[in-house]
Amino acid sequence: MAFGRKIYEELEGYTPGEQPKEPGVIKLNTNENPYPPSPRVLEALQALSADNARRYPDPVAAPLRRVCAEIYGLPGEEWLIAGNGMDELLALVLRAFVDPGDTVLALYPTYSLYEVLCRIHDCQLRYIDADENWQPPESFYEEKARLCFLTRPNAPTGLALDRALVEKFCTNFPGIVVIDEAYVDFADDHCMDFPERFENVIVMRTFSKSYSLAGLRIGIAAANPALIREFMKIKDSYNMNAWSQEAALAAVQDQEYMHQSAERVRKTRKHLREQLLDLGFTVHPSQTNFLLAHWAGTPSAAEIFETLRRDHHILVRYFNHRRLDNALRITIGTDEECAALVHALQRIIGDRG
Amino acid sequence: MAFGRKIYEELEGYTPGEQPKEPGVIKLNTNENPYPPSPRVLEALQALSADNARRYPDPVAAPLRRVCAEIYGLPGEEWLIAGNGMDELLALVLRAFVDPGDTVLALYPTYSLYEVLCRIHDCQLRYIDADENWQPPESFYEEKARLCFLTRPNAPTGLALDRALVEKFCTNFPGIVVIDEAYVDFADDHCMDFPERFENVIVMRTFSKSYSLAGLRIGIAAANPALIREFMKIKDSYNMNAWSQEAALAAVQDQEYMHQSAERVRKTRKHLREQLLDLGFTVHPSQTNFLLAHWAGTPSAAEIFETLRRDHHILVRYFNHRRLDNALRITIGTDEECAALVHALQRIIGDRG
Repeated sequence: MAFGRKIYEELEGYTPGEQPKEPGVIKLNTNENPYPPSPRVLEALQALSADNARRYPDPVAAPLRRVCAEIYGLPGEEWLIAGNGMDELLALVLRAFVDPGDTVLALYPTYSLYEVLCRIHDCQLRYIDADENWQPPESFYEEKARLCFLTRPNAPTGLALDRALVEKFCTNFPGIVVIDEAYVDFADDHCMDFPERFENVIVMRTFSKSYSLAGLRIGIAAANPALIREFMKIKDSYNMNAWSQEAALAAVQDQEYMHQSAERVRKTRKHLREQLLDLGFTVHPSQTNFLLAHWAGTPSAAEIFETLRRDHHILVRYFNHRRLDNALRITIGTDEECAALVHALQRIIGDRG
Repeated sequence: MAFGRKIYEELEGYTPGEQPKEPGVIKLNTNENPYPPSPRVLEALQALSADNARRYPDPVAAPLRRVCAEIYGLPGEEWLIAGNGMDELLALVLRAFVDPGDTVLALYPTYSLYEVLCRIHDCQLRYIDADENWQPPESFYEEKARLCFLTRPNAPTGLALDRALVEKFCTNFPGIVVIDEAYVDFADDHCMDFPERFENVIVMRTFSKSYSLAGLRIGIAAANPALIREFMKIKDSYNMNAWSQEAALAAVQDQEYMHQSAERVRKTRKHLREQLLDLGFTVHPSQTNFLLAHWAGTPSAAEIFETLRRDHHILVRYFNHRRLDNALRITIGTDEECAALVHALQRIIGDRG
């Protein structure tokens, strides 16, 4: 007997990037930060006691939200919700604001998880194709839907839509705009002022990238209190564990460390981009901690991906998706890791004749 | 403009038990364990490094599920899913197996979160009233619905339905039976053998009670692999953080400590029950880490609750719900905490004349 829901019969979940168990693998595939989190994080975690484990955590992560509100320049904690990773908040935003059957909008290409989340929530994701310069077409600003995911800077292109254009979109769009700022600390500017200016805008952040805390699952959404209340109604009662709350608090209070770490990534990014251009890749300037490198030659991007993995123990991300199947998405690692990648690419591309 | 979904317009979320910030409060209100987790848990957490924070966690908690399968006597990890607290798994089980509009069954009274979760999922919870001995009526075994929550031992009564009756129900029921074993380590027996015997049974466990890890949000569901796959399709990609996975692994591998801790709670429970009976409460023998104490006298249970809180800084749980509004749910604390409670109750009840 089958007990599952008909709507999920043919569903396959999201495939996260590979997490190899063997040591010695260079991991440039899941956009993790190559540098450790602020030393204050481990200090804070090691100071926790049995009571922090034994007791239920703060159900609404109030201290973390208070500190974040200050740092983000928002009026107060009622403008924020914390989640078990931004993943939880992205799933919640659909459940809070979109009825099954409704239409959700996103530019293509973008973060492929949205598609999975819409499928799970049984709503329709309508992609609007970016033009050949990866910009939204003029028609995008006239679209109507219940909600739009706007990833800024975008994944996997690494590009950030001009703030004025985001503003234009938020002004015209009749539904909720989720500005996914997962990578924003590596970018030149942000939209954290939008929640106060637009009643339909939710800005989301993660601690997985710039704060190096992917293992602790910490996400934040900022929006006007009326929208935050809708999230609060339907979230799991104790959605964020006590350890992650403490880690996030310690991390966010060390802004200097985070900015230094992001700056190191940006420097390596610039250098790696130049080297990839020299090798013949097409690489847009990135506002994130990865580069999308298009490759028109032989061997194919798919073959390069496989050879890197098999012969060089270097993992990058390859998407067998439209407009991305001739590209590699490369997370910015340490200088040494990126040098190893470039060396391997030279051998692979050099071997082609 | 309102952006929220119509179905949530009048929704109020679940109200978790109060978590006071002031020191000196005796907390007998949220069924936390009064004793710390196994010392191995803090050792394991303190041994974690920056890399455990920096990298994404195992998306499916494979090592934890392997060890749990062994301890639970199940064939393998494919019979288990781990979650961000049992709360996450209870919400997921509705989304995985129940269509909005469908009917879900539960005995009344039971864990009040189910009602909130059904409301969130937009399905109908049909309560079947337990009889005056808190047993299911005979008609219960003929009921049909998409899913049934069966809490064993039950909250807030503390009673465990006879295993033979659970078996009878699972055999007859055409939908999914979720046996919520949150408190089972304080009970005389369990149903962890049911997933192998019934294709429609899911047994859930939490690490919040017997393992003293409420702060780390760890839940496990056991079921046949076909059902586990349905959960896996729709869960958040990285639903369980790396720290909690390590804590759970350390805790579950110290069965001796957990059993000793549960035994201490059971001893105190026996003694406290006798004292409450002496005071004139009606208290069923409990299979959990709390007692449900009914009170027919004056002042009312609601007044006792308030006085305990205000004058004695002792928190217990009071439910203003049908058949429970003349009772207090009292978590088993340390012997000292329970002695303080009894002392306070003597004063309050003695003051009534």
